Amino acid sequence: MIHHTRPRITVVGAGPGDPGLITVSGLQALRSAAIVYYDALVNEALLAEAPARAPRIYVGKRAGRHSFAQEDINRQLVQGAYLYGHVVRLKGGDPFVFGRGHEELDFATRRGIEVRIIPGLSSATALPALQGVPVTRRGLSESFWVLTGTTRTGALSADIALAARSTATVVILMGLRKLREITELFRQYGRGDTPVMIVQNGSFPGERCLLGTVHTIADMQESSTDRGPGIIVIGEVASLHPAWQQVVQLQQAGSMSA
Amino acid sequence: MIHHTRPRITVVGAGPGDPGLITVSGLQALRSAAIVYYDALVNEALLAEAPARAPRIYVGKRAGRHSFAQEDINRQLVQGAYLYGHVVRLKGGDPFVFGRGHEELDFATRRGIEVRIIPGLSSATALPALQGVPVTRRGLSESFWVLTGTTRTGALSADIALAARSTATVVILMGLRKLREITELFRQYGRGDTPVMIVQNGSFPGERCLLGTVHTIADMQESSTDRGPGIIVIGEVASLHPAWQQVVQLQQAGSMSA
Repeated sequence: MIHHTRPRITVVGAGPGDPGLITVSGLQALRSAAIVYYDALVNEALLAEAPARAPRIYVGKRAGRHSFAQEDINRQLVQGAYLYGHVVRLKGGDPFVFGRGHEELDFATRRGIEVRIIPGLSSATALPALQGVPVTRRGLSESFWVLTGTTRTGALSADIALAARSTATVVILMGLRKLREITELFRQYGRGDTPVMIVQNGSFPGERCLLGTVHTIADMQESSTDRGPGIIVIGEVASLHPAWQQVVQLQQAGSMSA
Repeated sequence: MIHHTRPRITVVGAGPGDPGLITVSGLQALRSAAIVYYDALVNEALLAEAPARAPRIYVGKRAGRHSFAQEDINRQLVQGAYLYGHVVRLKGGDPFVFGRGHEELDFATRRGIEVRIIPGLSSATALPALQGVPVTRRGLSESFWVLTGTTRTGALSADIALAARSTATVVILMGLRKLREITELFRQYGRGDTPVMIVQNGSFPGERCLLGTVHTIADMQESSTDRGPGIIVIGEVASLHPAWQQVVQLQQAGSMSA
């Protein structure tokens, strides 16, 4: 196969889900792709924006579907660039926020391929915003700390204990399976009454938002059957959610009748 | 003046500067604006996207230009909505990351006006990414903490001392004036050799990137005459910058000849 476009890779952040939340530059790159490699968390509606002739290759890692090792993905991107020219690597959220986008950049750059990064909206800030909740707010929270619940070792990151002692808004990605452990830690530091918000399937049609406190949220979450990916926001800012007053009243009514 | 469109406000994050880094939905909102209120950090090239008849009102707070109080801005947005219909409030970065966007939402919502939020790329993650630096990287950093150098009281946030003890990548916005104080804190916690990156005028034509360590960066920054807004990234990830090896070699050569 002979082609005359130089091999290159554009790593594009697709944002949290809603196809309108990709950047203008990201969409332009996608429209000029010769081949697209995409993740589990990318809204497939975006794939329609790539040229009709461009193959769309799924290389996601979501639980329950066939999973690709990072090394394989790195290699596929480089091969794609040599075979097709312009590779668009479309990743959910921001490729440089727990996205392993840098590993892909690193691998390709070392093999002489030009790589461009177009950042995307991270679900860590965008999903709270879409719920009306800011990660910072004067007088309530002067910083936010974004952590992952899924570390390489499987253990809870030591930083989560430090986060529980800070005044930061704490945002945990990929942490739902450790929710009880996480809230237990916050409780140990006297943070039982701190407001918590969980957003699942954020900015997708099945979006679901749960409001509670460090004390209540794990029970609430476990009684749900939704196993979609979600983020956890722990901090006073969660009480700025428009439904907060109502939720708190319901919970108090519930505990009074219990 | 009689008009038939209902009063509403769309708060749009313009992203860090490059006009291509606004979201597709943000651009759509801008193109349907009846009036636009914009900040100092917004790239004025974006204003050309609003309809020709829509007034563009500057309500920025940047040092050296006339400054608007937050209360005045809140009131102007509401008045604009009643007089013109669809207000687009265009804010640099993400309106909910130190953007006071929630105060504007709050004020307008209490006055019965429908407010929609379209998040934007925060400079905290986007500017490092555009420099090739991820805020997280497996094995180097499992979290990132975003703080402001400018608190209401003027004092350094207590969270910065906690951040110096964490393994998080620390990103400080609006902190250049406190750079020496901040690096002094990190030094006290034995973090003198931690890599630091400063990005000024990020994703604007005058973008400038400075690489050093907690020990060296304050002297480097003070010898510069550039007083544009900037972000500070403290953490091992700064050493992933493509120019890092070269910079470290130059600095070592410099200290050997001194």
